[in-house]
Amino acid sequence: MSAKERLVYLPLGGAAEIGMNMYLYGWGAPGRERWIMIDVGVTFPSMEGSPGVDLIMADTAFIEERLDQLEAIFITHGHEDHVGGLGYLWPKIGGRPVYTRAFTGIIARHKLEGAGVDPSAVSIVEAMPEMVTAGPFKVGFLPVSHSIPEASAMVIDTPAGRVLHSGDLKLDPSPQLGEPFDPQSFRDVSGDGLLALVCDSTNVFSRDAGRSEADIVADVEALMKDATGMVVATTFASNIARLQTLAKAAAAQGRAVVLLGRAMNRMVGYGREAGIVTDFPNVVDVKEAASIPREHLFALSTGSQGEPRAATASLARDKYMGIELTKGDTFLFSSKTIPGNEVSVGRLVNGLAEKGVRVVEEDPRYHVSGHANRPDLEQVHTLTNPAFVVPMHGEYRHLKEHAELAQTGGRDAAIVPNGTMIDLSHEQGEVLDIVETGRTYLDGSVLIGAMDGVVRDRVRMALRGLVAVSVVVDEDDRALDGVWVELHGIPETHRGALQEDLEEAIEADLSRAKRADLKDDDAIADRVSRVVRKICNDQVGKKPLVTVMTNRLA
Amino acid sequence: MSAKERLVYLPLGGAAEIGMNMYLYGWGAPGRERWIMIDVGVTFPSMEGSPGVDLIMADTAFIEERLDQLEAIFITHGHEDHVGGLGYLWPKIGGRPVYTRAFTGIIARHKLEGAGVDPSAVSIVEAMPEMVTAGPFKVGFLPVSHSIPEASAMVIDTPAGRVLHSGDLKLDPSPQLGEPFDPQSFRDVSGDGLLALVCDSTNVFSRDAGRSEADIVADVEALMKDATGMVVATTFASNIARLQTLAKAAAAQGRAVVLLGRAMNRMVGYGREAGIVTDFPNVVDVKEAASIPREHLFALSTGSQGEPRAATASLARDKYMGIELTKGDTFLFSSKTIPGNEVSVGRLVNGLAEKGVRVVEEDPRYHVSGHANRPDLEQVHTLTNPAFVVPMHGEYRHLKEHAELAQTGGRDAAIVPNGTMIDLSHEQGEVLDIVETGRTYLDGSVLIGAMDGVVRDRVRMALRGLVAVSVVVDEDDRALDGVWVELHGIPETHRGALQEDLEEAIEADLSRAKRADLKDDDAIADRVSRVVRKICNDQVGKKPLVTVMTNRLA
Repeated sequence: MSAKERLVYLPLGGAAEIGMNMYLYGWGAPGRERWIMIDVGVTFPSMEGSPGVDLIMADTAFIEERLDQLEAIFITHGHEDHVGGLGYLWPKIGGRPVYTRAFTGIIARHKLEGAGVDPSAVSIVEAMPEMVTAGPFKVGFLPVSHSIPEASAMVIDTPAGRVLHSGDLKLDPSPQLGEPFDPQSFRDVSGDGLLALVCDSTNVFSRDAGRSEADIVADVEALMKDATGMVVATTFASNIARLQTLAKAAAAQGRAVVLLGRAMNRMVGYGREAGIVTDFPNVVDVKEAASIPREHLFALSTGSQGEPRAATASLARDKYMGIELTKGDTFLFSSKTIPGNEVSVGRLVNGLAEKGVRVVEEDPRYHVSGHANRPDLEQVHTLTNPAFVVPMHGEYRHLKEHAELAQTGGRDAAIVPNGTMIDLSHEQGEVLDIVETGRTYLDGSVLIGAMDGVVRDRVRMALRGLVAVSVVVDEDDRALDGVWVELHGIPETHRGALQEDLEEAIEADLSRAKRADLKDDDAIADRVSRVVRKICNDQVGKKPLVTVMTNRLA
Repeated sequence: MSAKERLVYLPLGGAAEIGMNMYLYGWGAPGRERWIMIDVGVTFPSMEGSPGVDLIMADTAFIEERLDQLEAIFITHGHEDHVGGLGYLWPKIGGRPVYTRAFTGIIARHKLEGAGVDPSAVSIVEAMPEMVTAGPFKVGFLPVSHSIPEASAMVIDTPAGRVLHSGDLKLDPSPQLGEPFDPQSFRDVSGDGLLALVCDSTNVFSRDAGRSEADIVADVEALMKDATGMVVATTFASNIARLQTLAKAAAAQGRAVVLLGRAMNRMVGYGREAGIVTDFPNVVDVKEAASIPREHLFALSTGSQGEPRAATASLARDKYMGIELTKGDTFLFSSKTIPGNEVSVGRLVNGLAEKGVRVVEEDPRYHVSGHANRPDLEQVHTLTNPAFVVPMHGEYRHLKEHAELAQTGGRDAAIVPNGTMIDLSHEQGEVLDIVETGRTYLDGSVLIGAMDGVVRDRVRMALRGLVAVSVVVDEDDRALDGVWVELHGIPETHRGALQEDLEEAIEADLSRAKRADLKDDDAIADRVSRVVRKICNDQVGKKPLVTVMTNRLA
C-alpha cells in the first residue's frame, strides 16, 4: 500500500447521541478514499426541539459531495435507529447497493417501498463466512444477540487489517429465538488481532452482567398463571423473541392471543416470512376477542413508550378496537422506559390505574435489556483483544466511560463524536478532519436541514405567539385606514381590547410617518413590528413574532 | 350541630398530579360552607403541553364564586409547588389572611411583593400549641421533617372532629437542620382518634424505609476529602440542610465555599433571616474565587434539574461568572432527577463530561428524598390511627397505591382527584359534588385559562406552521391582483416556489369567484384557506394554520 493511503472512520450519527446511527469507513489517499456506510438510522422528534417534524436523520452532505466514492451501504439490523432513514436518504446517497441479512432485508425493502423507491437495491447476505466485496473492503455479517432477530456485527476487512463494528449487541447464550451469543465466533474473527473494535456503549453504566432472555420465562409464566382477568403486555414489536415468550406463556394457560396495533401484526408477519418465527401460538383476530371470556384472553399491544396514537395509549384512554380494560385485568410493561419518555409512559400508567387495572411496570422479572452491560463489554474486549477501541452508540458520557473502561483494560481508545474523522491504520485515533455534521428533518413530505430556520420559526411561534398585520398603501404612498391585526397565540388583556389597541396604534403611527418612509415595504414592516412588540409587551408581557403584509394599490 | 352541616374536602390541585397544590376544607350546610384553603402552589410548563407559558396554577373559579365564604389561607411550607402561586392568585381569592410559619413567611411575603401585592397579608404563626381561629376551624402547624426548613402538617379542628393534613413530610430523626420527626407529637395530636388523615403519597412506590439526612454526611465528607480539583455540587437551593452538610464537609477540608446562582444566595439569606441557619461556613464572593487555587474551592450551584438559565447549565455549556470547570474537577448531583427532566439533566452530564469533569449523579450515597416512603407512610397511619385516609400529593397511580395501603391496614380510604368534593364527617368518602377544575396559566404578565385556546393556537403553529394571506377587495367586491402570502414554519419545496404558487393559486381562485361570494370576509377566508391547505399538502405534506386578512377599499 502507498504510504499515504490510510483507513479512516467517520461517524455521521450515533456517536455522542443515542439513535440516528450512520458510520463511514474509508480507505485510500486523502481525498481519494473509497467509502462504505454502515446503518442509515433515524431518531425521533420532540415537541421541545423539533415540533411538527416527522423524523430526524443524519446529514449526508459529506458523502453527497463524493458520491462516486461510496461503494455500498450495510445495515446491521432492523431497528429504526439503524434502518429507519433508508427510504428517505437512499436516493440522496447515490442509490448504492444495500446489503443486509434476510430479516433486516424485509424491513429495509419496506422502507424503500414506503418512500416510493425500488426495493431491489437491497441484497440479502448470509452470515459469515460469506463476505461482500465493496471496493477495497470485504465485509461480513457476524451474528450477535440483540432485541431483534438477525442482528449482526460487521467484520470489515481492509488493506490495513480487520475492524469489528459491533452494532447493537448483547451476550445472550439463550435468546429464545435466533442465534445465541457465540464467544468462539468472536475469538475466531479476531484471530491474529483486530486493528480496531468499534463498539456499542449504550449500557456501559450498567454495572452488573446482562441477563438472558431466558431469565424472564418462568416469571412471565407465573404472571400468566396467577392473573385473573384479561392480560395485556406491551414491548417493542420488533422484539419477536419477547413476543413469543409472552404469547407462549399465555397460550399455555389457555389464553387466546390477540395482536393490537399494526406493528405487532407486521413484525410477527416478517418473522414468519424470514422463517424465524416457527412456533408462535395461533393468533386470534381482534374482532373475535369480544366473544372470548376475558380471563381467556391475552393481547400484545404496541406503544410501550407512550406513543399517543398506539394501541396502548388507546387502551389507557378509552378502548382499542372494541377491547376495553377494567378492574381485574393486568397490564404488563415488558419493556424499559427510554429516558425522555417518563411523562408519556406515566400518562399510560395513570390512565390504566383509573380503570382499576393492575399495572406491572419497570419490573426486572419481566424485561431484560438488549445491550451489553459493562462486564459484558469487558468480555467483548477480552474476546476480540483489539489494540484500539472506539466507543459508539452512546451520548458523550457513555463514550467517555467506555473509553476509560478500555484504557483500564490496557487498550488504547478514543472518543470520536459525530463529524470527527480519525485514522484507524497509522496513528490510531489521530483526528484527521472535523466534518460539518447536522440533522436532516423529514417535515411533512420534504427533507430540510435542521438549521434551515423552518423549525426555529415554529418554536418561536410556540413560545411567543404571532401577530399578523395587513396594511394597504395607496398610489401616493399613504397608508389607508383599516389596518387589520390578527393575534395567534397571544393572550388577551382583561379589557379584551389588545387587537383594537394594536390597530389604532399602527394606524396612528403610519399616519404620522412621512410619505417617503412608506415607500419601502421593509421600512413599514420595521416600524409596525416595533409598535406591535411594544404594545404587546406593555399589555400582556410578551414580545411576539410579527408579520407585516403591505398591499400597494397600483 | 345542625343535621345538614358537614365537613367537606375539595382538592383543586395536587390530587392526581404532582405539584400545583391547593386544597379546600369547608364546614357548614350545603352552599353555606365556611372555607379554608391550604397551599397555593405552582407546577411548571413544558414545551410539549404549555409552550411559552411562565407558570401553571390551579383554577380558583370555585372559590372566586363564593369569596365571602373563604376565611383564610394556610401555607404548609416554602416549596414552589405549595406557595409559588400566592402572589398571582391572592388578589383573585379575595385577599384573605395568609398564615405561615416564620421561614415560609419570608418566602410567602417575597411572592406577594414580587407580584406587586402588599406582603402584610402574611401572618406568622408559631408551631403548635398555637392555633389560628378561622371561622368554624382552628388550625395549628405541626412541625414535620422535609427537604426545606419549617415544613408543617396542618392540624385542623372542626366541629366534626380533627383532621390531619400532612403536607409534604418525611420521618427523619436527624434532619441536620430544623426539627426532627417526633413520633410522640403525631400520637399527641391524634389523641382520641382522627376524623381523617389527608396524606402525602409521593413516595408510596418506594418499598424501603426512608433514609435520614444524617446518612449522607460521612459519604459527602469522604468525597470532599478524596476530590482533587474544584468540587461543585447542585441540589434544590431550598434544601438548606443539604447545603449546610455539603458546605461544612467542604470547609472541613479547607475549601472556600462559593454560592452560584441567585436562589442559592437568597435561600441561605432567608435561612439566616429566620434564625435557622446559624453555623453555615463563611461564604466567599464568586469574584474572589479566581484567586483561590481550585483544589481549595467548593461551589454550590443552582439548576439540578437542567434548567437552561441556571448556574449549572452555564457551567456545563461554558462557564459561570468566571468559573470554568475542567479535567480533575468533580461535579456532584446531590439530587434526584424529577421524571420528565431526564433529557435536560442528561444534557448537563454530557456537557460536563466533555470538559473532562468527573460527574457523580443518581448516587444514593449523596442524596436522600424528602418524602415518606411506603413503610414510613404505614408508620404515619399507625401513629395517627385515623378511621379514614385520603391520599394526596401524587398522580392517580400514587393515590390508588396509597389508598390500597391504607385499606390493607384495615382503614377506610378514598381516591379523591382534583375537583371531587367529598364528605369527611358523615358518610366518609361520599362524593358530594364534582367541581369543574382546570389550570390557570401565567402567560407573560396575564393570567389565562388553560382552555382559552391561546396556548392551543401556539401548539398548532408549532406542529403545522402558519400561512398568512393578505387580500385587497375593491369597492365593487372584486379581488385585486397582488395577493400577499407569508410562510411561517412551513418548509419550502425543492423548487423553492411554494410562496409564488400559493399567491398565483389564490389570485386565480378569487378571480373565478362570483362577486356575491366576495362580499363576505368569512367566505373569502374559507375559500383561500382551502386553496392554501390543499397546495401545501400536495407540495410539502403539511396542512398549516391559515390566517386570511381581507382589506376592503371604502
